Amino acid sequence: MEIRTDLALERRELAPEPCGGITSETLSMGNTKITRITVTDPQGAKLVGKPQGTYITIEVPPFSDESASDDERRSAITVELNRILPQNGPILIAGLGNADITPDALGPKTVEHILATRHIGQELSTALGLGVLRSVSVISPGVLGKTGIETAEIIKGVVGEVNPAAVIVIDALASRRLSRLGCTVQIADTGITPGSGVGNSRSEISQSTLGVPVVALGVPTVVDATTLAKDLLQGEEEQEDIHQNGAGMMVTPKEIDTVITHAADLVALSINCALHPHLSPEVLMALV
Amino acid sequence: MEIRTDLALERRELAPEPCGGITSETLSMGNTKITRITVTDPQGAKLVGKPQGTYITIEVPPFSDESASDDERRSAITVELNRILPQNGPILIAGLGNADITPDALGPKTVEHILATRHIGQELSTALGLGVLRSVSVISPGVLGKTGIETAEIIKGVVGEVNPAAVIVIDALASRRLSRLGCTVQIADTGITPGSGVGNSRSEISQSTLGVPVVALGVPTVVDATTLAKDLLQGEEEQEDIHQNGAGMMVTPKEIDTVITHAADLVALSINCALHPHLSPEVLMALV
Amino acid sequence: MEIRTDLALERRELAPEPCGGITSETLSMGNTKITRITVTDPQGAKLVGKPQGTYITIEVPPFSDESASDDERRSAITVELNRILPQNGPILIAGLGNADITPDALGPKTVEHILATRHIGQELSTALGLGVLRSVSVISPGVLGKTGIETAEIIKGVVGEVNPAAVIVIDALASRRLSRLGCTVQIADTGITPGSGVGNSRSEISQSTLGVPVVALGVPTVVDATTLAKDLLQGEEEQEDIHQNGAGMMVTPKEIDTVITHAADLVALSINCALHPHLSPEVLMALV
Amino acid sequence: MEIRTDLALERRELAPEPCGGITSETLSMGNTKITRITVTDPQGAKLVGKPQGTYITIEVPPFSDESASDDERRSAITVELNRILPQNGPILIAGLGNADITPDALGPKTVEHILATRHIGQELSTALGLGVLRSVSVISPGVLGKTGIETAEIIKGVVGEVNPAAVIVIDALASRRLSRLGCTVQIADTGITPGSGVGNSRSEISQSTLGVPVVALGVPTVVDATTLAKDLLQGEEEQEDIHQNGAGMMVTPKEIDTVITHAADLVALSINCALHPHLSPEVLMALV
Repeated sequence: MEIRTDLALERRELAPEPCGGITSETLSMGNTKITRITVTDPQGAKLVGKPQGTYITIEVPPFSDESASDDERRSAITVELNRILPQNGPILIAGLGNADITPDALGPKTVEHILATRHIGQELSTALGLGVLRSVSVISPGVLGKTGIETAEIIKGVVGEVNPAAVIVIDALASRRLSRLGCTVQIADTGITPGSGVGNSRSEISQSTLGVPVVALGVPTVVDATTLAKDLLQGEEEQEDIHQNGAGMMVTPKEIDTVITHAADLVALSINCALHPHLSPEVLMALV
Repeated sequence: MEIRTDLALERRELAPEPCGGITSETLSMGNTKITRITVTDPQGAKLVGKPQGTYITIEVPPFSDESASDDERRSAITVELNRILPQNGPILIAGLGNADITPDALGPKTVEHILATRHIGQELSTALGLGVLRSVSVISPGVLGKTGIETAEIIKGVVGEVNPAAVIVIDALASRRLSRLGCTVQIADTGITPGSGVGNSRSEISQSTLGVPVVALGVPTVVDATTLAKDLLQGEEEQEDIHQNGAGMMVTPKEIDTVITHAADLVALSINCALHPHLSPEVLMALV
Repeated sequence: MEIRTDLALERRELAPEPCGGITSETLSMGNTKITRITVTDPQGAKLVGKPQGTYITIEVPPFSDESASDDERRSAITVELNRILPQNGPILIAGLGNADITPDALGPKTVEHILATRHIGQELSTALGLGVLRSVSVISPGVLGKTGIETAEIIKGVVGEVNPAAVIVIDALASRRLSRLGCTVQIADTGITPGSGVGNSRSEISQSTLGVPVVALGVPTVVDATTLAKDLLQGEEEQEDIHQNGAGMMVTPKEIDTVITHAADLVALSINCALHPHLSPEVLMALV
Repeated sequence: MEIRTDLALERRELAPEPCGGITSETLSMGNTKITRITVTDPQGAKLVGKPQGTYITIEVPPFSDESASDDERRSAITVELNRILPQNGPILIAGLGNADITPDALGPKTVEHILATRHIGQELSTALGLGVLRSVSVISPGVLGKTGIETAEIIKGVVGEVNPAAVIVIDALASRRLSRLGCTVQIADTGITPGSGVGNSRSEISQSTLGVPVVALGVPTVVDATTLAKDLLQGEEEQEDIHQNGAGMMVTPKEIDTVITHAADLVALSINCALHPHLSPEVLMALV
């Protein structure tokens, strides 16, 4: 019985030792913990069930923890994004997911707060005292069931018009632990495949399909019910005994509306700060 | 370690045998199962942790089950409501809960689709071909944290103005099983205490506080994470081993937006049909 | 042909001279203009078509005017509210109108941002560093067509439970000028009658019906189409020639969603500041 | 002073006689009036201020008129769409406008109810008893100020991926008359330029920029305040005297939320019926 998670960090934990083809390093900054996992060869990819590349996990204190500041949470994400994004050139940001399904709305909600600048002339931005703004464009492509078009196709089409130096895709993820929901961010240089594991080449959103680097930023918002039950168990042996009743059902906290609102605000501000480092968070918040 | 549930049916299952002071009967109609539990004395009340009175549980097929019709689901609820409601006199309906928290929004969403008629003169309703409409009024009182007023106080104040023959309160409940969410309805003649068990007499909504019968209609929309884990286990002994990590966290399915929409539509139509039995479901749907 | 407006200031402009029974004074503070009109006798009441009492009109710069600060806009409203509200005792605030009709949603949207405190114990508020908070409770009573209950009845019922020293009702108004929409606030000590002029005693919300002072705070959000046309004309004589086509149709700016959002935020913060003068606007904004 | 309208029908009325280069025919079907205007040469294009092509105006009874049925309203739009659309091949539908500005939300709201089929295999649709479905895909491209990308660019990019036989763009329009709002539909084979008249070639959405036929379907939802005033006047001479105060301000009825909801439902169903003529309106409504 498989533990369902989209986090490379959690898959690494579950992989049998020794883990060849996987390296990892961890550092802590105040209340924030950052883990960088690199999958270096096909064997590692098989072990963690994810493509070769780098997966950065940022664990920030939950929003209910008032000993931590939003600045601290944002700062770690901004720094890690800047390590992985190209330093120059236009950026296209896509918010994946279904805006009408609360736990799936992270992408669409986040891009509502991204500062789009591609259409703002340099003269205007200078006149407004904003200096030279990096070109940023934003789309919310919707979901296949409502559009009839693979998200990857829409992004590919827009990439052809906008010619970005890189694409950032934002999506809601599944985690094995309730405690991660809304307060863990995974940044990967591998792109993603929505409804991952489907093995549908039309749906892959990556450098190989788009022709430019794709940074995937995800936040866990759901947990598989069976995984949740297993995770609440101490011993190994009981895991055999789990009923199949909850199989395939994804659950989310009662407070998911608040979780999504906070996470979307945090991720949007982190991206805005990463792309316009000469502007303060306060100025950027006032602009969106 | 306690199993958390607001359903008398589930509490009855968990109570140790023999269950003095509790009677129950079950009947099936097509795909629908109805269980009537009566708590007849204080001993029974202690066993199920709920006040004396009658608790009707209606289990309808989930909305994803296309072999069942909405008419069938509605019909059972309408019939049971009519068994418990006074046959004449004005009715006040209150939709409890927080409209901004998806799993808690059942009450506010349901009352949006209740046909309010108290302000419609008989001449007008006759002229519209609707015959004599029973007087129905509707409120959505909000939640204590946003209003500063106990829900029970708001309802009490409005009862004093409207003088109903009975009050129906609609609320989201907790269940021990994920599979019940959105497809089980509990109708009780005992009223309710929001955030039940708090033992706050200001918050009790019942005949003893309002002076008129109070029918509580609830639909489970959340499950306690620990209860969920226990429920997914087969044996008894493993229940000791559950981690405390998820303690107190309520979870809900990823599809909660859809669950709430369907359940609110179903409950509202069932109530409209119960209160205006001379009008067809189609006519009632067109009026709201 | 009558000019439709809910503003005493505009009715005063339209009344024929001499205006016995009406006194008025005007003062300017920076970009803000304040006019206090007092209707002192029945003759004045007839001239302006409004009950005897005091009507304060606060004209602030529109939100698109960036030379004015939000602090300046808020400050004037807060000062005038404090002149008219009792200095002590619990306050009940009711946001009138239909949350689903954008230009009518000012009341419901405003009360979403009012800090409700009645349920917060003094120990807790002191422990949170908020000092002694004035007791504030909040309701959003809905509209007659959806509840079957007159707004005045719901408020009266809640007043009976909460026993406030005064009630503030917030509502959207009609003005004769497009330029006023969203940037004029009228504060009156006369209460209001929703759908005013109907002469329905059940619907009056005033000291005579509730037994406590009622402060009505309104913001124009709609203009009568015919009034708009007349107001855009220079001469007198053309006014005879207006078609009856637009008669009775109320219009609102294309940007009404933004107008309502800004006005609701402004009014809520002004009220919060008036009721908790020992707390800064920044602290109050963080609390709601 | 210019009358502002996006309707060819209204521009034709305003053009000085004789109108060379413009032909028109009118027919009535029950309560519905259909006018087909063809702009045949550059002189006609200059007179009506619109590109050469065909403009069909469908005037249906307002929704408040209960003597007319929704079927009648829908039927006329479906018939006219089918006259102008290619009979075969995939269709891409784009809902233009800002979902957060109520009078501008017609496009995004309409496409929420369009049946997307491109991703549904023929086996599945046959198994579901739906027969062979025409390939339909749907996008909601957002607005330049939020995306940084011209709507035309996003559509062009998606056209490159989807290769439709034609594109339908849906947008909110300006009319000179309040009475048209929500109950007039213009269908043109010329495409459109959002924020028309700007003369920005990047923003034109037409066969010349996309390479496939573009059908523009628009519904008036706003009126220019000055145009409204002029239209409410009888004589010619007073038109000189209109104040400049309302210049440039667009207004919309107080009931705009309801207008948009009804119009979006009507347009979506009309398009669904036009594209899947073998399915009944009832079946199509149940599918979206």
